[in-house]
Amino acid sequence: MKISALLTSAGINIGLCVLFLSLYSVLRKQPANVRVYFGRRISEEHSRLREAFILERFVPSTGWIVKALRYTEEEVLAAAGLDAVAFNRMLVFSIRIFSLAALLCVFGILPLHYYGKNIQHLRIPSEDLDIFTIGNVEVRSRWLWVHCLVLYIISGVACILLYLEYRHIARLRLLHLKRATPNPGQFTVLVRGIPKTKKESCSSSVDDFFTKYHASSYLFHQVVYKAGKVQKIMTGAKKACRKLKHFTDNTVDQSCKAITYRCCLCGASSNSFQLLPTNEVVPSRVKADLDDSSLDIDNEECAAAFVFFKTRYGALVASDVLQTSNPTKWVTDLAPEPSDVYWSNIWLPYKQLWIRRIATLIGSIVFMLLFLAPVTFINGLSQLDQLQKRLPFLNGILKQPHHLVQLITGYLPSVILQIFLYSVAPIMMLFSTLEGPISHSERKRSACCKVLYFLIWNVFFVNVVSGTVLKQLDFFSSPKDIPVQLAKVIPGQASFFITYVLTSGWASLSSELMQLFGLIWNFIRKYVLRMKEDTEFVPSFPYHTEVPKVLLFGLLGFTCSVLAPLILPFLLVYFFLGYVVYRNQLLNVYRTRYDTGGLYWPIIHNTVIFSLVLTQIICLGVFGLKVSPVAAGFTIPLIIFTLLFNQYCRTRLLPLFSTFPAQVCIASIILQTSRN
Amino acid sequence: MKISALLTSAGINIGLCVLFLSLYSVLRKQPANVRVYFGRRISEEHSRLREAFILERFVPSTGWIVKALRYTEEEVLAAAGLDAVAFNRMLVFSIRIFSLAALLCVFGILPLHYYGKNIQHLRIPSEDLDIFTIGNVEVRSRWLWVHCLVLYIISGVACILLYLEYRHIARLRLLHLKRATPNPGQFTVLVRGIPKTKKESCSSSVDDFFTKYHASSYLFHQVVYKAGKVQKIMTGAKKACRKLKHFTDNTVDQSCKAITYRCCLCGASSNSFQLLPTNEVVPSRVKADLDDSSLDIDNEECAAAFVFFKTRYGALVASDVLQTSNPTKWVTDLAPEPSDVYWSNIWLPYKQLWIRRIATLIGSIVFMLLFLAPVTFINGLSQLDQLQKRLPFLNGILKQPHHLVQLITGYLPSVILQIFLYSVAPIMMLFSTLEGPISHSERKRSACCKVLYFLIWNVFFVNVVSGTVLKQLDFFSSPKDIPVQLAKVIPGQASFFITYVLTSGWASLSSELMQLFGLIWNFIRKYVLRMKEDTEFVPSFPYHTEVPKVLLFGLLGFTCSVLAPLILPFLLVYFFLGYVVYRNQLLNVYRTRYDTGGLYWPIIHNTVIFSLVLTQIICLGVFGLKVSPVAAGFTIPLIIFTLLFNQYCRTRLLPLFSTFPAQVCIASIILQTSRN
Repeated sequence: MKISALLTSAGINIGLCVLFLSLYSVLRKQPANVRVYFGRRISEEHSRLREAFILERFVPSTGWIVKALRYTEEEVLAAAGLDAVAFNRMLVFSIRIFSLAALLCVFGILPLHYYGKNIQHLRIPSEDLDIFTIGNVEVRSRWLWVHCLVLYIISGVACILLYLEYRHIARLRLLHLKRATPNPGQFTVLVRGIPKTKKESCSSSVDDFFTKYHASSYLFHQVVYKAGKVQKIMTGAKKACRKLKHFTDNTVDQSCKAITYRCCLCGASSNSFQLLPTNEVVPSRVKADLDDSSLDIDNEECAAAFVFFKTRYGALVASDVLQTSNPTKWVTDLAPEPSDVYWSNIWLPYKQLWIRRIATLIGSIVFMLLFLAPVTFINGLSQLDQLQKRLPFLNGILKQPHHLVQLITGYLPSVILQIFLYSVAPIMMLFSTLEGPISHSERKRSACCKVLYFLIWNVFFVNVVSGTVLKQLDFFSSPKDIPVQLAKVIPGQASFFITYVLTSGWASLSSELMQLFGLIWNFIRKYVLRMKEDTEFVPSFPYHTEVPKVLLFGLLGFTCSVLAPLILPFLLVYFFLGYVVYRNQLLNVYRTRYDTGGLYWPIIHNTVIFSLVLTQIICLGVFGLKVSPVAAGFTIPLIIFTLLFNQYCRTRLLPLFSTFPAQVCIASIILQTSRN
Repeated sequence: MKISALLTSAGINIGLCVLFLSLYSVLRKQPANVRVYFGRRISEEHSRLREAFILERFVPSTGWIVKALRYTEEEVLAAAGLDAVAFNRMLVFSIRIFSLAALLCVFGILPLHYYGKNIQHLRIPSEDLDIFTIGNVEVRSRWLWVHCLVLYIISGVACILLYLEYRHIARLRLLHLKRATPNPGQFTVLVRGIPKTKKESCSSSVDDFFTKYHASSYLFHQVVYKAGKVQKIMTGAKKACRKLKHFTDNTVDQSCKAITYRCCLCGASSNSFQLLPTNEVVPSRVKADLDDSSLDIDNEECAAAFVFFKTRYGALVASDVLQTSNPTKWVTDLAPEPSDVYWSNIWLPYKQLWIRRIATLIGSIVFMLLFLAPVTFINGLSQLDQLQKRLPFLNGILKQPHHLVQLITGYLPSVILQIFLYSVAPIMMLFSTLEGPISHSERKRSACCKVLYFLIWNVFFVNVVSGTVLKQLDFFSSPKDIPVQLAKVIPGQASFFITYVLTSGWASLSSELMQLFGLIWNFIRKYVLRMKEDTEFVPSFPYHTEVPKVLLFGLLGFTCSVLAPLILPFLLVYFFLGYVVYRNQLLNVYRTRYDTGGLYWPIIHNTVIFSLVLTQIICLGVFGLKVSPVAAGFTIPLIIFTLLFNQYCRTRLLPLFSTFPAQVCIASIILQTSRN
């Protein structure tokens, strides 16, 4: 692929981005679209926008960028929750590390590559991209130590930044836990696998069990009889509640609060819970109507129960400890937030879950492998000369005028890949649902992992491999020289990766900003279907597609940084743009109904570590190919250090993301009691 | 290797075994050796043996075998602890499954192999062993379905038996926990990583922390100041105590009890603990002298502390919950039994441990790889014709009379291997010590795992591989056809494995029974050094060498069962002999000072599952080689089922081995309180 072809697709994408951004800056000012672009604010802050018609509305502006950048982290945290902050920190981390990498590589390494072999250079536009990769460095070059040094610097700085971010997120997580207004989830434990007894009802057996074994802190419980029923009540109540909210009348509003409170039994509103430990009046009342509400359906079989404790610590202990000698009975977990509970999974028999997990695991692996076909095809497109040998009829295409070929090679492949990739997220989400998680957030997180593995495998490895598959078919037949294989291939694939960044990266950002689907749907609703606009439907941020996307670009950046630095500037633009766009979206468009409490960060951390180690292994292979024993020798300790660092983070910080420290829970209790 | 060569080494070993056993049956009757052969009984049951001289003492007898078999499981449990029972069950399981396998394979499969190809058969003795392996079955044979069926039966029965044993051990573990006389370890938590504060002493900071966060169940604590000091006191006290015990005088005996009690502060004797929850007099007294005992050394820095709780449940909770927001501070684990504590590791700073673990891991891997050299050499010996090609000077040996060659090929190799293997256990034990476990039992368990991996890798795989290394050197270069490779090699290696069973297996058993070292040492002490015999030194059972040994033979049995059934009879003899011998040793010779509470069983279970799956994979390869798509097709679901079964056991039973169920703890408390 020639520089000119690259410039073609770069041009196309820059054009599209500018177009989209300016379009956005206009559209967002139209009152008609306010629901699309300010969903969160309207639903949460009830902000009113002026309807007046002024010309200024139709002039593209950049004010929104400034606004997006002006928000502080506290505001993001307050508006979009801890996950948003973690996502945000990931972008910040990427920007930092890759600006450093770009600086070092573009000015330090690119010249080495360009003048690597003393050949007759053409004019830059018609140069082949490979001129700028390490492929152009002579074997036994004196300059490979530069590569090794840069690798050291990048890895070192990356580790330091990672650690700081990790610690920062952990601290935020603890604060989020210490919050003065505790959320009911922390007082509640979800019990599954309740053994069925003939003689006594499920509700009473739960009562007996916890009064016997957790007498000190047990408060009361609510059995989940049929997810369908509870869910229907809740949704119904919510709908009513929303309908009522519209007339912002206080009295009505209170009654509607009562409703929410009533059907949030599975984790009542926080006020009620702050009271519980101190005065016993409220819970007793609640307990009363709880019981008579459950009496009439006692005969149905129960699958799960929410058990409430007087203190956070009590709930924590009850959820940590193994209850009985049969680990599949009386299984206790900390209950998710009321709005986070995934009702239709709660009543799944606990014994099924391990089977479901395995089944979904196998399913997603099969799906990944089936996906090979399109990817290989696409990769073929990016190497027409390769295809030409195999498929002679393609000569026809190559006879076409030059720019068309450039278009095909430079732009088409990754567009096709995009189209295929759109199907992935929903399918993975489906798999995660079948897995049987008890909360929306957990479901989304596991989907996030699946999509991440999928992308890394299908976009990175398979592209690399299928690039070689056309050359030599026995890639995986020899594991011990995989580094060498990768080293051979990666530089050659750089061109594809660059175009992938341009199309998939930039284009997806601008379409994300435009909310095309939302826009069109909104238009159709308003002017075609003439429906009354439902103000309450506001989507929540799709972490399960966005986190993997950003991480994948990070992987591409790390692996290409030293070998084909030309990708870095494009990547850096992507990250900057992403930073602005995502902040804007998080603050204006999406609404956070549920929050994992920063549990995305360990995923991010592990992926970055993986990318680093992979990069180092590939460089090891390259140094081996270039017969530079010194550089190769220096790379090995680097790998070891990176892995040690990862292990340190695991021991030092990871436990905070799997459970809550007792100290914090008890401290918060003391705090409350002292306050009340 | 010819049958005759096999018979030679079999003859040698049977002769040796009979000799050793009869020797043992004589020696054990000699009063001089009573300390060697009845260490446990003398030290625990204080049984007196008659000194009278009678001829009967010098006549070999088999009474001890009957005695060993007569003991019930309860007696074994009482005498040697739960680990001994687990070990015993492992032998029972092996006997059961391999008697079935031998029945099926010897009568079902062996004929198929022998008449597999219609060739001119010689006289049996001069037949080559390979005649009896699957190598002698024709490609596309109609009879391979028999192999597949047998494989199904063996796998199925093995899984069923495994599950029953696993459940049995789990039940015993729970009983062992419910025991009426609770052991102090369950009331005690070992705290490490106590943060150092300038202003207050370590002891008081511990006190503050636990009175603040575990007020309800915290009783008192004892800081470990310097392992050396406490250890010296304890050992000194113990010695004195033993000296006193000799005059079986009650008053003295009590005072001596008092001493043990005093220095078992870190987990006092059980009686004292049963009292603690009920009357507060004892602890207050203890607490008092605890404090003044600790006051004088308060200025020293403290590394760890034993914290005592009123109830088991309290201790369990304190050990389960993450204490502070820094996971490397205030690290709590259930304390080991007083006699089990590994003092010299207690004061290791907790922050070091993760580094130590990694270091020892790397160290043991390196050691494994370094061990390749001898193994390869030995394997060469078992295939002289191979060596001959490489090393022409060996022709001299092959000119020797026939039986000498047979001796070399049949017997020498595994003897050499034995000699090398003797060095492994101590080295692995050293590694495990460096890892920093807090209890002897944990140390022994991790050593057991290391030795197990070592044996499986160096005795099984490397023998197999180096067997091929002489043929084709690129064994690991192609992972995807490893099954085929294994399938090619295993039958050829059968001869070596059989001789390995004969020499390593039988010989080691009889030497284990003879206690040669103990015998000689005892002799030297008595008649050369004229030392006063120290009645108190009684070794504890070396699980870390014996468990892996038995498991390795299990692996050999499973992998060879279908392919080279000739090994099974020899193996079965080994297991029967082992059953008798080990029972005898556990009941008479060894003394159990500490007990993991059956934690060896998960290791055993996993290894058996691994062996099964490996066998199935190898058979898959074989069926592939023999071009029998049906058999191969039927094997794949078998592999999947086996893995699913393992997963089920993990979810259903494994948790019981990592923690204690709250129900049991609380039930036992209720029991006590009701009793007192």
